[in-house]
Amino acid sequence: TDSHLAEADSQTEWTDVQKKIIPWKNSTPSLDLEMAFQDRAAKLGKSNSRLIVVASLIDKPTNLGGLCRTSEIFGASALVVGSLHYVQDKQFQHLSVSAEQWLPLVEVKPPQLVDYLQEKKTEGYTIIGVEQTAKSFDLTEYCFPEKSLLLLGNEHEGIPANLIHHLDVCVEIPQQGIIRSLNVHVSGALLIWEYTRQQVIKQKQQQ
Amino acid sequence: TDSHLAEADSQTEWTDVQKKIIPWKNSTPSLDLEMAFQDRAAKLGKSNSRLIVVASLIDKPTNLGGLCRTSEIFGASALVVGSLHYVQDKQFQHLSVSAEQWLPLVEVKPPQLVDYLQEKKTEGYTIIGVEQTAKSFDLTEYCFPEKSLLLLGNEHEGIPANLIHHLDVCVEIPQQGIIRSLNVHVSGALLIWEYTRQQVIKQKQQQ
Repeated sequence: TDSHLAEADSQTEWTDVQKKIIPWKNSTPSLDLEMAFQDRAAKLGKSNSRLIVVASLIDKPTNLGGLCRTSEIFGASALVVGSLHYVQDKQFQHLSVSAEQWLPLVEVKPPQLVDYLQEKKTEGYTIIGVEQTAKSFDLTEYCFPEKSLLLLGNEHEGIPANLIHHLDVCVEIPQQGIIRSLNVHVSGALLIWEYTRQQVIKQKQQQ
Repeated sequence: TDSHLAEADSQTEWTDVQKKIIPWKNSTPSLDLEMAFQDRAAKLGKSNSRLIVVASLIDKPTNLGGLCRTSEIFGASALVVGSLHYVQDKQFQHLSVSAEQWLPLVEVKPPQLVDYLQEKKTEGYTIIGVEQTAKSFDLTEYCFPEKSLLLLGNEHEGIPANLIHHLDVCVEIPQQGIIRSLNVHVSGALLIWEYTRQQVIKQKQQQ
């Protein structure tokens, strides 16, 4: 099987991928991201969503690769990862099916997350944690703003307490089963879908 | 890593799992399934959904294990697989996180699918294919009946033409990206979620 952790076996491939990656905290990060949006929107032939998926707390390359594929398919504007090195991982690539070539990837290491979330707030994004808390909204009742940023939790620890304070809202997925919670890729996919579904319905109502 | 195809290394575990498996085509298959429903509903402390997820066309143990976890969490009544041997697979078990111990599993081999779908139709289920066709409903517009059976396609071939004729309806997930379609576990998860969301909203309206 090809589902192993392994060094990237082709430096050329990595260089190709690197061109598509948007560095955070260069001189004009938001401008770069904006250009990447528009570039991809033009390629897609339609306007993109303003959904940012933040997966910096996620450790497993399979979950990150899967989120990359799902985020690309629903037209998210960027996927934020804790390290760009994940893109070289064979498991990531196996799951992402090359989506990383189309979806802007941003590297924000976990210690930088507080600053990053603050910056996005000032740009008008609502910071949404996907987490079960006493104050969480049920996903069946939450109405996503157009500029939404989803922060996904770690596979084991979820979202740490110090980051919970920086969120505008928490959303949780109502679960009925006996076993422990959904896989983080699936949780992310359901919120990405719900955002998309609501945007589609709004667009139809405006027509 | 534990993500390898491997023989089950414990006969004891397999025996434990086997107790939870409902054979199709024994003398009273529907009665058995109904009893499993009720047994689990009692354990869950609430009424279960009448959603059956049919994954007989799916080949990858990772997708099947993931679907098992997701189906269990949303209270599906059963997961139908092409072979019960998948449950012994290490990749399946890694992804299912023991959900197979709670969710009734039914074995329906691909050549038996036509008969199985016919039987479920006579029991009042609407047979819903998750597939892009000229006549597919958009998932943002489809209203799921209470008794819904989801037929998921193969990772490569989707749903074969001979089975398409036996469906009541096809539903597709609107996709905006450049890369090829969603992973089948994610597609299934989105339909399971959408079914669940609609049921939750209906229940609230009835209160």
